[in-house]
Amino acid sequence: MKTAAFIIIGNEILSGRTQDKNLNYLAQYLGDFGIDFIEARIIQDNQDTIIKTIHELKKTVDYIFTSGGIGPTHDDITADSVAAACGVSIDMRDDAVKILTDYYGQEHLNPARLRMARIPDGAILIDNPVTKAPGFYLDNIFVLAGIPRVQQAMLESITHLFSGQHAPIQTICVRTQSPESFLADMMGQLQNDYPDINIGSYPYSVGGIYATRIVLRGHDMQKMNQLYEILCEKLHELSVSFVLEEQKSA
Amino acid sequence: MKTAAFIIIGNEILSGRTQDKNLNYLAQYLGDFGIDFIEARIIQDNQDTIIKTIHELKKTVDYIFTSGGIGPTHDDITADSVAAACGVSIDMRDDAVKILTDYYGQEHLNPARLRMARIPDGAILIDNPVTKAPGFYLDNIFVLAGIPRVQQAMLESITHLFSGQHAPIQTICVRTQSPESFLADMMGQLQNDYPDINIGSYPYSVGGIYATRIVLRGHDMQKMNQLYEILCEKLHELSVSFVLEEQKSA
Repeated sequence: MKTAAFIIIGNEILSGRTQDKNLNYLAQYLGDFGIDFIEARIIQDNQDTIIKTIHELKKTVDYIFTSGGIGPTHDDITADSVAAACGVSIDMRDDAVKILTDYYGQEHLNPARLRMARIPDGAILIDNPVTKAPGFYLDNIFVLAGIPRVQQAMLESITHLFSGQHAPIQTICVRTQSPESFLADMMGQLQNDYPDINIGSYPYSVGGIYATRIVLRGHDMQKMNQLYEILCEKLHELSVSFVLEEQKSA
Repeated sequence: MKTAAFIIIGNEILSGRTQDKNLNYLAQYLGDFGIDFIEARIIQDNQDTIIKTIHELKKTVDYIFTSGGIGPTHDDITADSVAAACGVSIDMRDDAVKILTDYYGQEHLNPARLRMARIPDGAILIDNPVTKAPGFYLDNIFVLAGIPRVQQAMLESITHLFSGQHAPIQTICVRTQSPESFLADMMGQLQNDYPDINIGSYPYSVGGIYATRIVLRGHDMQKMNQLYEILCEKLHELSVSFVLEEQKSA
């Protein structure tokens, strides 16, 4: 299985000024392509921090996605940081300059806007149908804009790189009418028996009554269905009411 | 200045099933106490990963906050992981057992619920006025529940540990009627002149017109006001319309 990590370069998230809206979208996107999303980091707009974070995550995941810091201002340092992390040079590139010239017109292409045409050597551009300034990818690092609708459009532009490689991650969610603690032993036992399937336990309450969602998540649909059948039996044995709330390929 | 990091232990966030609601609250909480929030990590419910993450962040920040994984089920492994990361033993502790007994009553205190009384050696309990099962802190690691209203109540329980130590982080937000690229040089220059104050540039659009928020953030109010005056002058020189949108102590 392929794995992925997400680096959100975002002082505005860490200051509490902005609520992140990109992580949840990417999580579902990766699930659709059967890619295991194993870690996200939200870090400051600082070149050393970005480089260090890329180096650390490169060792542990197959794909790194970054969010933010590719605009025209002094705090947009992602492209330079990625180039430095990958040990390649960076400069304005003709293909990126052409995209910006076509969009802004030569007369409005000031030096700040031209910064957005700085692309690391060897990177491949990612199309941005919304605001034109492109993202790029290099060595399995996918560099995306931070504005959610731009980021989502960029992700749409690169689906061909991921599609058809792995089955989507499967989810089965069972909603029970029992507090977590009453189901704990049973779930722990099932998790031991099925180490390849993640069994999550999520308490919720309705009208002051505590109850539990049990979420199965894995790649092998046959095994998932087998585990689901056993889970139903166990819940019957415990006389716990439940419903199948969701069954989907991520 | 003190620094902090946040570890969200959350398969449900990484799967896209749940949208995180804790990070933004903690960010504002830390700002109020003048603590620099420098990194957040969202990681899988896996003991080795939790231990590794704590070890890495312990080297770089003064305070670590964790979210999630302190309930009664098999996937609640945070307390054990924190104990292992700190090299201390963990067992059921009388003070925590008493809290649970008082709440559930002796007859409803099954082994799963008693797991929530497992507290690392030397840790101090954090009061949970909502669902009673306590959090704890140990070696500047603050272990909180993942459910937002419980986490927020726990944070309220420990404000005395942080209050009065540092001035709150100051924010000044100026909303301009100009695209980022037109302000880029000026902002870059000011950032060079005031390295201790973070100058953020955030594009937005209204009715298809692109404009920019400039956010100043720092600890020294006198310097902040000085920079604000200069920024106003520069915007006047550039004939850019603007308003002071926000001025606050985080």
